Amino acid sequence: MYDATSPVPDEHTDAEVLVVWGNPRGQLTDSATRLTRLRWIQALAAGPDVILAAGFAPEVRVTSGRSLHDGPVAEHTLALALTAVRRLDLMHDAQRSGRWARELGGVQSARPSTFPGLGTLNGAEVTIWGFGSIGQRLAPLLTALGANVVGVATTPGTRAGVPVIAAEGLPARLAETDILIGILPATPATAHAISADVLTQLPAHAWVINVGRGATLDEDALDHALRSGTLAGAALDVFDREPLPDGSLLWTTPNLIITPHAAGGRPQGAEALIKKNLAAYLAGEPLLNLVER
Amino acid sequence: MYDATSPVPDEHTDAEVLVVWGNPRGQLTDSATRLTRLRWIQALAAGPDVILAAGFAPEVRVTSGRSLHDGPVAEHTLALALTAVRRLDLMHDAQRSGRWARELGGVQSARPSTFPGLGTLNGAEVTIWGFGSIGQRLAPLLTALGANVVGVATTPGTRAGVPVIAAEGLPARLAETDILIGILPATPATAHAISADVLTQLPAHAWVINVGRGATLDEDALDHALRSGTLAGAALDVFDREPLPDGSLLWTTPNLIITPHAAGGRPQGAEALIKKNLAAYLAGEPLLNLVER
Repeated sequence: MYDATSPVPDEHTDAEVLVVWGNPRGQLTDSATRLTRLRWIQALAAGPDVILAAGFAPEVRVTSGRSLHDGPVAEHTLALALTAVRRLDLMHDAQRSGRWARELGGVQSARPSTFPGLGTLNGAEVTIWGFGSIGQRLAPLLTALGANVVGVATTPGTRAGVPVIAAEGLPARLAETDILIGILPATPATAHAISADVLTQLPAHAWVINVGRGATLDEDALDHALRSGTLAGAALDVFDREPLPDGSLLWTTPNLIITPHAAGGRPQGAEALIKKNLAAYLAGEPLLNLVER
Repeated sequence: MYDATSPVPDEHTDAEVLVVWGNPRGQLTDSATRLTRLRWIQALAAGPDVILAAGFAPEVRVTSGRSLHDGPVAEHTLALALTAVRRLDLMHDAQRSGRWARELGGVQSARPSTFPGLGTLNGAEVTIWGFGSIGQRLAPLLTALGANVVGVATTPGTRAGVPVIAAEGLPARLAETDILIGILPATPATAHAISADVLTQLPAHAWVINVGRGATLDEDALDHALRSGTLAGAALDVFDREPLPDGSLLWTTPNLIITPHAAGGRPQGAEALIKKNLAAYLAGEPLLNLVER
């Protein structure tokens, strides 16, 4: 154990292995300079992009903690999807003004037309863009509620019983998507993947949920789509800049639900992963969750 | 089809069968007086208590629409449970004031102690009081997220793979319950079942969710428990008086989530149920969902 928010103490700069969890950017760039014997970094975060940008020597291997966050992130994403279809956000606004939201309760149809929303996940077409371990944990939760799930990944096929399409199939799928869920990592290839063009291809009643990385979504395009009503709603847990700056347009975007990068942040099973990978490291065997650099 | 909000037209007062969905109290008491040849009422609501109180002759059989609401009510209840553990209500309040809720995001433990809440359904002990068809639909959704579910019903045993206890077992179970979910019908026996005494037996970190009927929960006791901090939070979809009156204490109760009786209200498969029961009625066979009067 070390204090992840302070520079590594001088007597430990000879470390070969560094476990990283919640280290601020400055601590990492400092470690990259001072830990000259470092050979391996075990991140507990799902996405190691902050580590990759910190300037560690190319021979330092990085393993991610992505498997540790599958459950928590899937749970939060499901919470956002249910909040979206049930419009718990609007109900909460009504509650705060002491108003019974009659228009959202009582006798209603399954697909209400009186407010932007779907009413239920039952029968909803859900597309999960970035269909890794989190998506595969999330998909059965959605299908248990009656949703039809399609994944989007580099390699098409069937994964965990879910049909997976590649980028070529995206335009056709977007046109029939009720909820688009982004779980993409931040890489040069995924920058603004959820673009103005993608948003335009979604039906006007559709929702977008992003729990991957903020850099994968064009926030200006999303704000524009929500303000102009060409998209029904969105729920974002990740942002281009975090914390979302004071005065950001997004604070006042209609039909937008903001959560403060709260999907993960609760690694589950970290000790077991560290133990397993340390044994593999010492034995010279392949490491789990190795990140391509 | 008839207008359920107006009195039944004179030319139809000879009806033997009445399908009821969203009929106001006055329409029902009027029908009870004027439909003298009535023999059977098919309700589409899950709970037919409003019909039972309308003064229909004792020989009029009443069948409920309870099976039609299992999916929608289970979905809404799950949405409330996730909102509770993830504190989406507090995140929404922060959003509305343009504030990044740093205390609810980023690096955190699975069971945060810094705010009232559980953090996750994973590992949570959930007790479903009133373990009928809705509870049995809800239970697997909760267990898929890692919760341990116990039902409470008149007859103990195992139902749909879930351990079910009777009232005798309640005190011991309440003491270890993280989330108590009420799905009780409104009967004389269930009036204020969720009482001050029951609330006292729950741990201080527990949440109460009620989606059954408002009459089954002591609202004053709940308000008191939440204001005094002996209970962490509650989410109510049903109330003693609906709409919840202007000026009700509950509008300002801390850590209370209010939704406007929005869990059900979307009967699914109503036509099939009516068809089946009408065939049974005409053939003199037993009716589905017959309510004891």
